[in-house]
Amino acid sequence: MAIKVIIAGFKGKMGQAAYKMVLEDEELELIGLVDPFATEKNVAGVPVFTDKTDLTALEADVWVDFTTPAVAYENTKFALENGFAPVVGTTGFTAEQIDELKSLSARKALGGLIAPNFAIGAILLMQFAAQAAKYLPNVEIIELHHDNKKDAPSGTAIKTAELISETRQSLKQGATDEEELLAGARGAEVDGMRIHSVRLPGLVAHQEVIFGAQGEGLTLRHDSYDRISFMSGVNLGIKEVVKRQQLVYGLEQLL
Amino acid sequence: MAIKVIIAGFKGKMGQAAYKMVLEDEELELIGLVDPFATEKNVAGVPVFTDKTDLTALEADVWVDFTTPAVAYENTKFALENGFAPVVGTTGFTAEQIDELKSLSARKALGGLIAPNFAIGAILLMQFAAQAAKYLPNVEIIELHHDNKKDAPSGTAIKTAELISETRQSLKQGATDEEELLAGARGAEVDGMRIHSVRLPGLVAHQEVIFGAQGEGLTLRHDSYDRISFMSGVNLGIKEVVKRQQLVYGLEQLL
Amino acid sequence: MAIKVIIAGFKGKMGQAAYKMVLEDEELELIGLVDPFATEKNVAGVPVFTDKTDLTALEADVWVDFTTPAVAYENTKFALENGFAPVVGTTGFTAEQIDELKSLSARKALGGLIAPNFAIGAILLMQFAAQAAKYLPNVEIIELHHDNKKDAPSGTAIKTAELISETRQSLKQGATDEEELLAGARGAEVDGMRIHSVRLPGLVAHQEVIFGAQGEGLTLRHDSYDRISFMSGVNLGIKEVVKRQQLVYGLEQLL
Amino acid sequence: MAIKVIIAGFKGKMGQAAYKMVLEDEELELIGLVDPFATEKNVAGVPVFTDKTDLTALEADVWVDFTTPAVAYENTKFALENGFAPVVGTTGFTAEQIDELKSLSARKALGGLIAPNFAIGAILLMQFAAQAAKYLPNVEIIELHHDNKKDAPSGTAIKTAELISETRQSLKQGATDEEELLAGARGAEVDGMRIHSVRLPGLVAHQEVIFGAQGEGLTLRHDSYDRISFMSGVNLGIKEVVKRQQLVYGLEQLL
Repeated sequence: MAIKVIIAGFKGKMGQAAYKMVLEDEELELIGLVDPFATEKNVAGVPVFTDKTDLTALEADVWVDFTTPAVAYENTKFALENGFAPVVGTTGFTAEQIDELKSLSARKALGGLIAPNFAIGAILLMQFAAQAAKYLPNVEIIELHHDNKKDAPSGTAIKTAELISETRQSLKQGATDEEELLAGARGAEVDGMRIHSVRLPGLVAHQEVIFGAQGEGLTLRHDSYDRISFMSGVNLGIKEVVKRQQLVYGLEQLL
Repeated sequence: MAIKVIIAGFKGKMGQAAYKMVLEDEELELIGLVDPFATEKNVAGVPVFTDKTDLTALEADVWVDFTTPAVAYENTKFALENGFAPVVGTTGFTAEQIDELKSLSARKALGGLIAPNFAIGAILLMQFAAQAAKYLPNVEIIELHHDNKKDAPSGTAIKTAELISETRQSLKQGATDEEELLAGARGAEVDGMRIHSVRLPGLVAHQEVIFGAQGEGLTLRHDSYDRISFMSGVNLGIKEVVKRQQLVYGLEQLL
Repeated sequence: MAIKVIIAGFKGKMGQAAYKMVLEDEELELIGLVDPFATEKNVAGVPVFTDKTDLTALEADVWVDFTTPAVAYENTKFALENGFAPVVGTTGFTAEQIDELKSLSARKALGGLIAPNFAIGAILLMQFAAQAAKYLPNVEIIELHHDNKKDAPSGTAIKTAELISETRQSLKQGATDEEELLAGARGAEVDGMRIHSVRLPGLVAHQEVIFGAQGEGLTLRHDSYDRISFMSGVNLGIKEVVKRQQLVYGLEQLL
Repeated sequence: MAIKVIIAGFKGKMGQAAYKMVLEDEELELIGLVDPFATEKNVAGVPVFTDKTDLTALEADVWVDFTTPAVAYENTKFALENGFAPVVGTTGFTAEQIDELKSLSARKALGGLIAPNFAIGAILLMQFAAQAAKYLPNVEIIELHHDNKKDAPSGTAIKTAELISETRQSLKQGATDEEELLAGARGAEVDGMRIHSVRLPGLVAHQEVIFGAQGEGLTLRHDSYDRISFMSGVNLGIKEVVKRQQLVYGLEQLL
């Protein structure tokens, strides 16, 4: 039987992508849409609401939420209280709010997912990097982004380095008498590892983690071309939360 | 306290690399060398033997074996019977021999490792590929080798495809109306996946596993430049078998 | 002084991109727009026409044409006759038409460009590949596209192989006793070279040309993410044709 | 008819590689070997000398020189004076010496080559990079070497950046409000371009030059695995110098 899905914030860019993804998957059934900016009464036969309180009577399994930080916490709480397992891509939750929602979900015996990043490839890359670093402690990170990006290194690169640090033996890499003829050549340092940030027009968001050992190399690369990539993570989230009895934070908890 | 190591077959190419690796690691202590072709009585103070039966009195922890298929089974059995945990890189064991050695090791409560491939990077790549395929079922493999290689695809590529097949949903990839204007363009097919074999002078042994999904890509690449790469796997094997009570087959069992 | 530009077919996708590009470049001045589907009289102060014959009085230097195969030949002739150097991205010209337009341009002492591909990076890759093949005759091509692409190999890969064939010594690559354990593993063959076609969701249009020689490798890769990439070629075309006295076919003629 | 070749310094590592390369090429005929450290009188029927003055009577076309900086200048002069076109891989010539040898070669109407780098792939990469930068001014360089390398960036990377600077419009790349959260993330700067140096065990010597433009990217990569790679350049040098009437400096002069 298909999993019954509600999408909150369906008028936004991510909401629209989620709408399309749910419609195209036979294992999912779209039974309600909600957005305060909606003017239509239904879309392709699916009822549209502007106020979430009108959805309490719906018999849905999952509440997909791509709304705004201002309302996401209230929405998630509402979903859990009404028996919908939440799959939330909106950011801005505090640690306290997440803890509270976890407790609430456990009391309701409902699964749930709040995820700051739904790109499965990116999550897998971080996991694999941390795992490989146990055995291959020599590693450098190259992240490549479009040249409008202001900050370097990227948040993902720093996060990746931190995850690697948790599993690898601490190590100051490079030659002991290493010397930069030009400042910055060896990149930024995080716990003895080096991070390099490339910025060029045409690029979108890419990251390489390169491990080296005697006579061999292992390279992990993620290319992100479009936010549409988040949808495979949302799809996975929907199918996993219905099997679970507690909300989790981070898509990696479901892999 | 250092782990006491014997190396059998130390005159061969791999044995020599193992000898060097053990000497350079403070956590390991080389206490004996054996090779029927040895003519010296000791090397750098370490006693050299030509007959393994002369080593029964040695108090060693680990028996590293890079001998020949003809004697490796007997050597491994000998090691277990004399209380040395074997770490064996020689090939040619039958399934029955491996089972028998596992039983013997269990009775002796000794760890052990027989591994056809000691390159940690290659093993990690295969594991990661199988793991990623669960979530990203669209995948192709490109393997690149020097142009003296006779067979295509490589054994590693076929092995990787088989491991991927165990975890991913079966899927015929590519456009449904896909057409080869030139035969072979789309590569070899294994369970709906494609494998491409590149052969060029200068190359050594390389493999890329490329996953694609809506708006993103994940690429795993292993480069093998030299058999010296096996030594990090041998090192790991030595340090792991002393903690275990049964022999395993395949380095992946220790990761 | 700025180069005065007319854009024909400005309502189409490419025409719109050209419109934006011209406006953003201080060295160019947009003085007229034409499109039979236009309903507005002017855009941002630039006059809009629906019939090209109304533009004969304009004092323009360059006629950029992104119309349709049905009218492109007539448009290009019209441009030359009225003193505008044409830069044409529309396809479908016959060899006779191109010859005729070259002759006409020479009589008028006007430069011009008809180009089937305006992506400078793709053109450079093909040129470099042909140049490298003179010295490094062992080469394979990997092209990677989204999995909706029906044909394999891509037209660009075949074109690249043909250009390489013109400069390299003929050579049957790979081991002489090479054997495919799985049919297609070694890819398609063009003049002894191999071409491999990868098809995965998420990919756009990518091509790698890999050269190998004793102890070294040279890899040329082009990534095409968006048709917007054509605009740097159009920009180059506009600035080059005003310096020339004859129309050329192919952007490579201006590099 | 085969080109008759003498190899000076044939007992060294490069000399040995040259010896092997000449023997394997039917278009070349090895007619003399010279090395002060040689003890044999001939090798595979080819006469061996310890003193170059004993070779004046040989009817050779080309003098391949892999000796030492101390004698290379005298050797090259000797070769030219005796009618042998020199192909010299030894370093340490002063600019004055090179000028003098050029003049001498012109008087003798003999070709010749002195080259600090014989890796054709590396030379082609530098040429292509300079050529591409004319049209694609946004570029970054990543060079990757083994972790025993002391200096960063590599000499080749700096040389490549300088060659690029000669052809591209000067440009400060990256976002105007770019900010390094961790110092060094954006790499070293040369004329507005960025260079990143990766150092890992297992790597040999690799360089990537990445160009980005709206919607596209062009990447040039050279991998150097072994000094044996120099031999295709030496081979090319031998075949080119016999067609020429003056000595040149740098393999790029023959491409």
